[in-house]
Amino acid sequence: MTDLAAEAQQSARGVVIGLIVPDITNPFFAQLAKSIEMEVASRGGMVMLANSHDDPGIELKQVRAMHEWPVTGIIVVAGSDASRSYSAELPIISLDRRYGTYPLVATDQRDGARKVVDHLHGLGHRIIAYIAGPENLEVARERRDGFIERVNELSTPDDEIDLTVHTGEFDFASGEAVARNILLQLRRGFRITAIATASDQQAIGVLRCARDLGVHVPQDVSVIGFDDITLASLVVPRLTTLRQPIEDIASVAVDRIVAKMEAPSDHAVRGSLIVRESTAPASRWD
Amino acid sequence: MTDLAAEAQQSARGVVIGLIVPDITNPFFAQLAKSIEMEVASRGGMVMLANSHDDPGIELKQVRAMHEWPVTGIIVVAGSDASRSYSAELPIISLDRRYGTYPLVATDQRDGARKVVDHLHGLGHRIIAYIAGPENLEVARERRDGFIERVNELSTPDDEIDLTVHTGEFDFASGEAVARNILLQLRRGFRITAIATASDQQAIGVLRCARDLGVHVPQDVSVIGFDDITLASLVVPRLTTLRQPIEDIASVAVDRIVAKMEAPSDHAVRGSLIVRESTAPASRWD
Repeated sequence: MTDLAAEAQQSARGVVIGLIVPDITNPFFAQLAKSIEMEVASRGGMVMLANSHDDPGIELKQVRAMHEWPVTGIIVVAGSDASRSYSAELPIISLDRRYGTYPLVATDQRDGARKVVDHLHGLGHRIIAYIAGPENLEVARERRDGFIERVNELSTPDDEIDLTVHTGEFDFASGEAVARNILLQLRRGFRITAIATASDQQAIGVLRCARDLGVHVPQDVSVIGFDDITLASLVVPRLTTLRQPIEDIASVAVDRIVAKMEAPSDHAVRGSLIVRESTAPASRWD
Repeated sequence: MTDLAAEAQQSARGVVIGLIVPDITNPFFAQLAKSIEMEVASRGGMVMLANSHDDPGIELKQVRAMHEWPVTGIIVVAGSDASRSYSAELPIISLDRRYGTYPLVATDQRDGARKVVDHLHGLGHRIIAYIAGPENLEVARERRDGFIERVNELSTPDDEIDLTVHTGEFDFASGEAVARNILLQLRRGFRITAIATASDQQAIGVLRCARDLGVHVPQDVSVIGFDDITLASLVVPRLTTLRQPIEDIASVAVDRIVAKMEAPSDHAVRGSLIVRESTAPASRWD
């Protein structure tokens, strides 16, 4: 097929965006994919979706394969920093997690993490555990660093904040496993009052573990997530979390593909704190 | 592009399957999409995914649009019985929910519902509420009819089963809303002991509502779902449910596209009961 024929065919079809996500069963990515899909559909276009299963090799193959199709551009949520970037002839935008050196449209992760700290601090929490996401993901490091940065700003010699940082994966199971180590310390007299996580999935794992160990949330320990997936308002107790502006970042990412911007810059959108039932004033262990 | 050129181009790309689902943020469809994706990837192919948003018009447009692409075949999870079928030149398989008159690969819904009844009956439940899925979906009617059928078989004049059937959507919110009506009856002295649902999402909504109303699961009321989404083993209490054999139905559906079977028949795979913590022997209200 000639370039001209390909172009003619494509314009008859409208905008077609290739979207690559690490795992469509991750509820955050599913919501992101749906938002992209709705945004593209509102412009009369379609989305071609591929799942990279967090594998840089598969991801590269998919980016390459999409070049064989008449797609308008590609949006990639990278599996890891180890993603093998492809010298594309098509516009590529990184969404949520940076792919290679392509411009990133995402939530302002540091700002979000700082808002979480402010909320906990305002409730009197001074002994806090943070469960970070994987070290090899920029998005996880940004959230963690924003969290630590704000804790350090608020901590004073007279009113210190004691922070321990743990590392896990972003999923339910990891939140549950890491929480077990943290919550068992309670029995040994370590008086932690709040657990903050890098994802709602982790936070839901923490709730599951707390329940199993007979730790009451938020009476004994407050729990706060990050993302605001649909599930966050369904779990018991309903989860306080940082809402990522999914529709906004989807809309900006699609805009950038459609407008065929020359060398667009990164774009960050601020999230908002959603206060529900899993956080409360710090318990007094004494 | 000539047919021959299209064919040559396609074979160079390997198998490409178009997959249309009603809503990718429904965890069951996300797991189904992932299984299809993995099945196709294991054969060196790719999936093009579209979201019909339960809209027959969008669904039809997507089936049509996929014909413009060199896809090997299309798998459709129909949004409703009102789906507007397309006279396809490509192989089409219905998955989970029938699209038009195309052959259906799905869980044996009736058998699954019967297994749920047997489990509740064995635990001594005799006053049961069933929350069905939407009336306009064959899959919902099949589950409901299988449930009623088995209840009628087991109910005897000496040992009657009292069944009330309610209807909702398949989602969390609907389960929560319908459960409210059912559980408020407990306060008025109606001694229900178990609630069965047509989806895990509904069941999780029921758990949420029970918690809000101070009804203990499974001590006061048993709750049982259908699907076995990942979340089922994470909620409190962990959900007893009917596991749909997702990998099996994905594999059969992809096989049928790849083998280009002439007029394949329907194919049903039996699910299995997964007993967790949300069901227990019937409470004695007297």
